[in-house]
Amino acid sequence: MKLLVTEDYETLSQITADIVLMKWAESRRVNLALTAGSSPKRAYEILAERLKQVSFDQSLAHFYNFDEITLKGQEYGMTMQALTKELFEPLGIEEENIEVLDVQNYQDYDRQIAEDGGLDLVLMGIGGDGHFCGNLPDFTSFDFGVYRVPIEQDDELYKLIDESSPHEPGEEMVTFGAQTVLAAKELVLIANGEKKAAIIKQALEGPITEDVPASVLRLHPNLTVILDREAASLLD
Amino acid sequence: MKLLVTEDYETLSQITADIVLMKWAESRRVNLALTAGSSPKRAYEILAERLKQVSFDQSLAHFYNFDEITLKGQEYGMTMQALTKELFEPLGIEEENIEVLDVQNYQDYDRQIAEDGGLDLVLMGIGGDGHFCGNLPDFTSFDFGVYRVPIEQDDELYKLIDESSPHEPGEEMVTFGAQTVLAAKELVLIANGEKKAAIIKQALEGPITEDVPASVLRLHPNLTVILDREAASLLD
Amino acid sequence: MKLLVTEDYETLSQITADIVLMKWAESRRVNLALTAGSSPKRAYEILAERLKQVSFDQSLAHFYNFDEITLKGQEYGMTMQALTKELFEPLGIEEENIEVLDVQNYQDYDRQIAEDGGLDLVLMGIGGDGHFCGNLPDFTSFDFGVYRVPIEQDDELYKLIDESSPHEPGEEMVTFGAQTVLAAKELVLIANGEKKAAIIKQALEGPITEDVPASVLRLHPNLTVILDREAASLLD
Amino acid sequence: MKLLVTEDYETLSQITADIVLMKWAESRRVNLALTAGSSPKRAYEILAERLKQVSFDQSLAHFYNFDEITLKGQEYGMTMQALTKELFEPLGIEEENIEVLDVQNYQDYDRQIAEDGGLDLVLMGIGGDGHFCGNLPDFTSFDFGVYRVPIEQDDELYKLIDESSPHEPGEEMVTFGAQTVLAAKELVLIANGEKKAAIIKQALEGPITEDVPASVLRLHPNLTVILDREAASLLD
Repeated sequence: MKLLVTEDYETLSQITADIVLMKWAESRRVNLALTAGSSPKRAYEILAERLKQVSFDQSLAHFYNFDEITLKGQEYGMTMQALTKELFEPLGIEEENIEVLDVQNYQDYDRQIAEDGGLDLVLMGIGGDGHFCGNLPDFTSFDFGVYRVPIEQDDELYKLIDESSPHEPGEEMVTFGAQTVLAAKELVLIANGEKKAAIIKQALEGPITEDVPASVLRLHPNLTVILDREAASLLD
Repeated sequence: MKLLVTEDYETLSQITADIVLMKWAESRRVNLALTAGSSPKRAYEILAERLKQVSFDQSLAHFYNFDEITLKGQEYGMTMQALTKELFEPLGIEEENIEVLDVQNYQDYDRQIAEDGGLDLVLMGIGGDGHFCGNLPDFTSFDFGVYRVPIEQDDELYKLIDESSPHEPGEEMVTFGAQTVLAAKELVLIANGEKKAAIIKQALEGPITEDVPASVLRLHPNLTVILDREAASLLD
Repeated sequence: MKLLVTEDYETLSQITADIVLMKWAESRRVNLALTAGSSPKRAYEILAERLKQVSFDQSLAHFYNFDEITLKGQEYGMTMQALTKELFEPLGIEEENIEVLDVQNYQDYDRQIAEDGGLDLVLMGIGGDGHFCGNLPDFTSFDFGVYRVPIEQDDELYKLIDESSPHEPGEEMVTFGAQTVLAAKELVLIANGEKKAAIIKQALEGPITEDVPASVLRLHPNLTVILDREAASLLD
Repeated sequence: MKLLVTEDYETLSQITADIVLMKWAESRRVNLALTAGSSPKRAYEILAERLKQVSFDQSLAHFYNFDEITLKGQEYGMTMQALTKELFEPLGIEEENIEVLDVQNYQDYDRQIAEDGGLDLVLMGIGGDGHFCGNLPDFTSFDFGVYRVPIEQDDELYKLIDESSPHEPGEEMVTFGAQTVLAAKELVLIANGEKKAAIIKQALEGPITEDVPASVLRLHPNLTVILDREAASLLD
């Protein structure tokens, strides 16, 4: 594990932006699964600035959403809506470079990734409960490839979605499992802020267990963890 | 996971020999941790034949013993004795290319491997109990780097050693843990024979659990599993 | 450069077959450009035997012909006819895994390779004149990607083709240039027999020059050269 | 070739700094050959700032000077003096992480690099005459590994050194040749300013020739070129 602790969120975001930029600029097809959410927000803003300042062949990178949650009456689910708003539109990513995971195709998706040449980079955040992608402690198995989780109205997950989306939650989630993520060539995990300090300590220094799903990422031979000082504050 | 099922042990051994040969012949330093034991026996014989038929620069490969068990009154432990007899002597590997792990240096060994540039290849067998390297179900944690296990006279491990060595077991074992092994660039797992069929099924198709230590190897992005038909006979 | 000198052509062929086999068995898409011709003949026979003895997922490898020579009145050119006979048919490679380079698509081909994820392995022989792929001393430029060469009836090339094919030569050749080949992740060059000894000496120990096209291959960071003793006999 | 054209030198420098930072932070030994001179000046300043803002294990990276010019009466040559001032001291690189190339050890240096595991990254500028490292048009051969060039008082090189150093030029230069540089896993070439526009055009779009030494870098499968708008202004 490559661990970088930055003084502040801005530095974390600059480094993260440049990691994505350099992969994006590869001279052959690369497959990138980049997270939506609060952690990479500033990195994507910097990336948008970079795109104004840097010319390169943008056409060889393909972008994958690594999980999806259906929303009632919506064509696209929660993740694709977020990625579209936070990443694809501001960065001008063409539709032909976006590979959509959804409840229809999830069963063939590991195969599809293999046929596409494998994932080159997965950029993830970590949840306060230790989840990465859609792997929540309640149902994570390190043995899963891409899989489906039904959502019931009295689930924690339902409430979580309900709070964070203007749309009513649908009935299912699909997500890359540990097998899918750890098969990628390179993983980057970012976390910032005091509220992530406790779970970062568990994920990086506690036992590797399905109860703290992100703990399994430490087993990958090419994992980079970038934390700001606050998120790292409880580490030994 | 790259899975190859061979018709017989001979074919498995030829392929394994060539995998090792091609790494050995790299034009820059490579670090190889190769197992002793019955599974690679024929592969090493073929490799010895290859060395008579193929000239290449043999000096850039370094060989690591991935575990060690002390033996009473013996300078070298059980693994180094076995590797010396089965691999180092028949293949003429120079002492300066052998990096010895033992009970004295095990605490610094993960660091040493990092300073040496990391492991390029780990070739392993699998025990009937699912162990890889010295990671037995009784004490495996996926969280361990190189670690030490005390051996008590009434342990299973003690009996196992006692049966397989002409020397009396010593008091400790050291071994690469899951963290050390999964940090390598490439893993190869070989198994042959009917007696391995049940554990292979568990390790490759059962849950990833510390109770079947080798199950964790499936999480590595660059794992090759080579089985003969018998060892693969229970797989789906 | 990784140099292996084998006692005989059989050993060279076994090693070459296993290199191709292990790439073919990758668990993600791989792109292989394998030569036709006399040098790999035995390797492909061994590979055909291997396919009877070894089960693996064969569907993720794609095969590229790295040059093509049109033939009068023939749908397929000289290289595709040879590869079909020597490689694709005996090894049961499906049409959907064959990526055909021809005079129609050669101008977009470097782009196509990039979109396919780049070449993972190029296996080449060497001509008595130092050519690799279709790069003959008369018209090689290290600066070329995939390019086209017109064939005139009084050319050396015309005569060469005329002698080696039952069909009348057409009017053009297309071939991967040095840029295309050296952009691959891994190169393997094989040569056997006394008749290759002089050109091997020039290509490996003489100046890097367009007059000996294969000399440029030495610049690749991941080149393996496998020679039998005779082909290596003039090397220092 | 991965080509990035930045709006200005500042952006070029930020990206370059982050490329070096991410290699430096690897969790296993990495070998870096970074240029001195005007092109990376700002990148190293940014890197110095990064080191104040980012904590990581700095101890696994080793730094190589890729050429050296002796100076009369000086212990260290021109390159080591420049690197010490511009890179090693401001960035606090420990002596034990610096691998010095000089006129005494140059003949064994390619071997030493191989034993060290090969170069992971070479960061270069380009001279107005097309030179990279110490490969000037007058004496470049693509066939050279690390080599020595005598310096005569009426040479162009003598005058060049004399103008750019407060010390009197010595009698020899040693430098990584094309073979050494192209054997590295990754190359980065940076250039900024109008004065580099003409040579960048030649190096990237002209013939690959020893008369424009840097033209050979295009043959490397993992080359990144980063230019500011001015240096790129003559490219097609």
